[in-house]
Amino acid sequence: MLRFACDYQEGCIPAILDRLIETNLVQVAGYGEDPFAENARRIIREACGCPQADVHFFAGGTQTNAVTIHGLLTSYEGVIAADTGHVNGHEAGAVEARGHKVITLPGIDGKLTAEAVRTWMEAFLDDDSRDHVVQPGMVYVSQPTELGTLYSRAELAAIAETAHAFGLKLFVDGARLAYGLAAKENDVTLEDLAKLTDAFYIGGTKCGGLIGEALVVPNPKVLPHFFTTMKQQGAVLAKGRLVGITFEVLMSDNRYVEAGRHGVELAQRLKRALLEKGYELFVDTPTNQIFALLDQETCNRLSEKFVFSNWQRVADGRRVVRFCTSWATDPAAVDELIAAL
Amino acid sequence: MLRFACDYQEGCIPAILDRLIETNLVQVAGYGEDPFAENARRIIREACGCPQADVHFFAGGTQTNAVTIHGLLTSYEGVIAADTGHVNGHEAGAVEARGHKVITLPGIDGKLTAEAVRTWMEAFLDDDSRDHVVQPGMVYVSQPTELGTLYSRAELAAIAETAHAFGLKLFVDGARLAYGLAAKENDVTLEDLAKLTDAFYIGGTKCGGLIGEALVVPNPKVLPHFFTTMKQQGAVLAKGRLVGITFEVLMSDNRYVEAGRHGVELAQRLKRALLEKGYELFVDTPTNQIFALLDQETCNRLSEKFVFSNWQRVADGRRVVRFCTSWATDPAAVDELIAAL
Amino acid sequence: MLRFACDYQEGCIPAILDRLIETNLVQVAGYGEDPFAENARRIIREACGCPQADVHFFAGGTQTNAVTIHGLLTSYEGVIAADTGHVNGHEAGAVEARGHKVITLPGIDGKLTAEAVRTWMEAFLDDDSRDHVVQPGMVYVSQPTELGTLYSRAELAAIAETAHAFGLKLFVDGARLAYGLAAKENDVTLEDLAKLTDAFYIGGTKCGGLIGEALVVPNPKVLPHFFTTMKQQGAVLAKGRLVGITFEVLMSDNRYVEAGRHGVELAQRLKRALLEKGYELFVDTPTNQIFALLDQETCNRLSEKFVFSNWQRVADGRRVVRFCTSWATDPAAVDELIAAL
Amino acid sequence: MLRFACDYQEGCIPAILDRLIETNLVQVAGYGEDPFAENARRIIREACGCPQADVHFFAGGTQTNAVTIHGLLTSYEGVIAADTGHVNGHEAGAVEARGHKVITLPGIDGKLTAEAVRTWMEAFLDDDSRDHVVQPGMVYVSQPTELGTLYSRAELAAIAETAHAFGLKLFVDGARLAYGLAAKENDVTLEDLAKLTDAFYIGGTKCGGLIGEALVVPNPKVLPHFFTTMKQQGAVLAKGRLVGITFEVLMSDNRYVEAGRHGVELAQRLKRALLEKGYELFVDTPTNQIFALLDQETCNRLSEKFVFSNWQRVADGRRVVRFCTSWATDPAAVDELIAAL
Repeated sequence: MLRFACDYQEGCIPAILDRLIETNLVQVAGYGEDPFAENARRIIREACGCPQADVHFFAGGTQTNAVTIHGLLTSYEGVIAADTGHVNGHEAGAVEARGHKVITLPGIDGKLTAEAVRTWMEAFLDDDSRDHVVQPGMVYVSQPTELGTLYSRAELAAIAETAHAFGLKLFVDGARLAYGLAAKENDVTLEDLAKLTDAFYIGGTKCGGLIGEALVVPNPKVLPHFFTTMKQQGAVLAKGRLVGITFEVLMSDNRYVEAGRHGVELAQRLKRALLEKGYELFVDTPTNQIFALLDQETCNRLSEKFVFSNWQRVADGRRVVRFCTSWATDPAAVDELIAAL
Repeated sequence: MLRFACDYQEGCIPAILDRLIETNLVQVAGYGEDPFAENARRIIREACGCPQADVHFFAGGTQTNAVTIHGLLTSYEGVIAADTGHVNGHEAGAVEARGHKVITLPGIDGKLTAEAVRTWMEAFLDDDSRDHVVQPGMVYVSQPTELGTLYSRAELAAIAETAHAFGLKLFVDGARLAYGLAAKENDVTLEDLAKLTDAFYIGGTKCGGLIGEALVVPNPKVLPHFFTTMKQQGAVLAKGRLVGITFEVLMSDNRYVEAGRHGVELAQRLKRALLEKGYELFVDTPTNQIFALLDQETCNRLSEKFVFSNWQRVADGRRVVRFCTSWATDPAAVDELIAAL
Repeated sequence: MLRFACDYQEGCIPAILDRLIETNLVQVAGYGEDPFAENARRIIREACGCPQADVHFFAGGTQTNAVTIHGLLTSYEGVIAADTGHVNGHEAGAVEARGHKVITLPGIDGKLTAEAVRTWMEAFLDDDSRDHVVQPGMVYVSQPTELGTLYSRAELAAIAETAHAFGLKLFVDGARLAYGLAAKENDVTLEDLAKLTDAFYIGGTKCGGLIGEALVVPNPKVLPHFFTTMKQQGAVLAKGRLVGITFEVLMSDNRYVEAGRHGVELAQRLKRALLEKGYELFVDTPTNQIFALLDQETCNRLSEKFVFSNWQRVADGRRVVRFCTSWATDPAAVDELIAAL
Repeated sequence: MLRFACDYQEGCIPAILDRLIETNLVQVAGYGEDPFAENARRIIREACGCPQADVHFFAGGTQTNAVTIHGLLTSYEGVIAADTGHVNGHEAGAVEARGHKVITLPGIDGKLTAEAVRTWMEAFLDDDSRDHVVQPGMVYVSQPTELGTLYSRAELAAIAETAHAFGLKLFVDGARLAYGLAAKENDVTLEDLAKLTDAFYIGGTKCGGLIGEALVVPNPKVLPHFFTTMKQQGAVLAKGRLVGITFEVLMSDNRYVEAGRHGVELAQRLKRALLEKGYELFVDTPTNQIFALLDQETCNRLSEKFVFSNWQRVADGRRVVRFCTSWATDPAAVDELIAAL
């Protein structure tokens, strides 16, 4: 079987394994206080043009989202997100388990708009009984989104401005950020993210890393005692070196963007082939996830040789399926898939 | 500096890295459904003589404790633990953050006794207003304990029998289980743990693994829908292969016990040297942690060349310090430390 | 000002105060173990035709909903509710604060349908990654609903059957149950509720009681150790006699239904007047809440003399307002309001 | 049976019922925005010499403690309390259910000392791994304590000074404050409490009120959006008038202190009689709770006619029992009890 089900089905960029072997018996402190993690933090701060930022390492995306949101909110606050947002639909209620409501707004191709946030906030502030409901505390978006789409710098800046104008924090989930940074249409840089957000993370797991995500907090004051919060939430790795080395290697020598570029190019090749062969897209995406509408018969036929995700059914009986490429996808596998369409 | 501060200051047993490299580009499913994890589960079930057990992989010890305890308890229940237990003192309130009280009983050298549990439960049941307090739901112990001591099979069996007689579940934290299994005095096997407990974990992080802990649940019915609980708690690794491979390798070819044996032998050599040189032990331990009483001047002198843990002060001004060896400790480093005492 | 803002703006049915005075110095046990509460439980069990039911007394509606839902769910489960449901929009995230997601389905006039529940559950069970999301544990509906509408016995029976077929529990919020029982169109009795639900409550606060709500649990096994849960949640009154006496009096001599009837008759008179005068209803309701569409000028004019709720704006600029009557509404006040329309 | 089991076994001071009847049909806003509650707040602010204070009304003591502590702490903080503190032992884990650890220090006759807080904080700050544990956020004490003892003004001032010096907040549980204010030995006034604490409450339920407790927050900034927190926690009464009227009446015309004085005088009469008849006290208390050591035979004999609390057993087999008087205790009942000793 050839797998297009997700972007974490292989191990990691080989240079990370090389570095693991090279440093295996070096004795270092635990809990992210090792020199590899320190170096990774330095590299990330520099890449973000944000020398004062805190950088915290997590083991995975749901953990990063849930713990960061919990840290940014007080107990009476909730998080505004698109209805398709990962925190709303695919994290087993992790935000709610930590006490916070996910306040959903309808997304357009998986994206929130500044206008939608403003309209909702104005209605909230117009409501006489707003003390009786969850207080909005922050906005959550993903770049790329759950549907593989991208915010432009202007769109993200507008959301940031609106959020901050209403006293809301802004957090950007970058689980697949490499594929966003590498997209042809993208104009949002790490420096932009550091300027516009209160926190964002650079995804490692799905972007060629061995393990982990790197949370960047441009103004560390918004997350006081965050190590204790992470520890309490079971999110501190004793062997912090694993994530430290992952990001030290991944963020050096342009490897992160290269990893993204590989995935994006193959995904876009697949997208063009789908369109040429007359398939309809569910949403047109510039990154490494392609959402296509297939009839059941085609689904069944492709499933014999390829693994991909059943996303949802649509009214006419067709299925939305997702093909996902990665830093490690074999171009020959994409060719085989295209041939089989 | 030579580090005796903990048992997670090096990477991992090299065979794990070899296997990571060998399998790096093999495409597998995520979330622990990969063949490496499946194979690790099979090996662990066999080692425990418990073919029906569920085996769940976690990223670290605090996470395993907090999520398992949360899964085993209902919302009105608490967990009984020794006052020195890791869940009480060193996990940043992780159990409480998930809603449960840690009910502490005085430990003796870090150990609970069946008698103490029975006495507490009898007083609880004798209390007319026991509906007004947290209901006890389970007992938590560590093997080895936080103080490096061990339960004998008879002691553990007595605790299990007492707990179950009162309707309490029993969970054993095996973060350092390799060092317990390898101790000369030990008579508790993996099979015993599978027979006596409702859940226990085989520690990887501190015992030579790259990452992770393996939770064994002899009767899976006590933790229904546990994958969802783990996901909600941010405790599912997308790249489950990392922990899968760790345990596949660690639990094969007697590596786990060998890793433990190496650490224990060096720790015991250090212990004998301390006693010969006239130092007093805070507690006499058969495993890889040695707790000694040092005066401040000796502490300062040793700190110039060695890293170890300041545990606590005692009344006469001396400090309790902990020296910890591991699967990776260099015998020459122990010799140097002994020479410096 | 004449108040039509809600149904808890007066004190209580005078007979309750009489009984409070009469029993004021009688010494009784606390925490709901007093003879008044015991008698109220007996009366309620009889009225429900359910001698084995547990009856628990709470201080208010949000508390009853949040604590009961928390008790009925395990930590990985969520509650299905209409998007307009009180637990979703007006309880400050109380369900989420206790760790559970509110899974919203679109309501029709504030009502869920068995069909909507079935469709959602079938899609859930068809989702390969359903282990990654909150598990549905129960269905929440209100009778009357947040929009003053009523479920028929057939509708409620269909929801109960569907819920139970999928292993979901059913909880009915009866904060305004008196106004439902007294509605001309109603065919759902207390006995029906006891037969169809896993728990429901008889609202006191809004229905003429001094304080409190009476939760009926037909099969007590679904809420083990519920007193401890209530205590933990701050929901046990030391002077349980207050709620006990409230329900002892309220549920005797047909007072509960009479209280409802008074409110419903006046609300329906107001509704007819609104329609006669050419106003449009937002939703046609048979109970004590009337939702009408008013232009801003009429809102302003009426606000000079009457208090009512601004519910929401609609697209054409008109406002949805709610007029609420109660057991205590003065018919002359309704006449004045009608005259002012 | 004559009841000495607690101080909430009767209804309330009759003047409260009179006022309830007098105002029963007055229409007022809900949720504590009624004029009775407003007036009660005014009276309380004046009595505390603290015009800027916020005053929030709760339905009971456990609720007040749990919600206030939750509001004052962030998610990574715990509360320091005496091991005998009500929040530690008698609230079913309410603090933990909201995510916070209760950090217990040994109490002396139920009291914390500034010295104990200082010593604990110094050890905490001396611990290199203090980021791995719950951060202390506040100190909780009761006046009178769970054991009926009182803090002097000097003792309380020392605790306040120490707490604030370490950045900890101070909260005083005044469930039985009337009996403290009325004690002969007492030198702590409401004004002192408003000056020394970050929050304290004036108990109503146990001190002659119909229902409720009044939380005083001298500096409202420490509890932002507290109404929403209360609503989320199920702690807002729709009919706030009940608690408003309770405190309006209770805090007028010296009724609160008079209620306390009645209870204290009878308790002290009982204490003197116990001592005269040769019984030993478990702890010598100046308030309305008397703790005596009785042999089992005397317990059994008294239990035939009197209700009192079994507190605990002591080593020699005797029982500690608690006799509790109240604002409503009949002097003749105390005489009967004394005669029966």
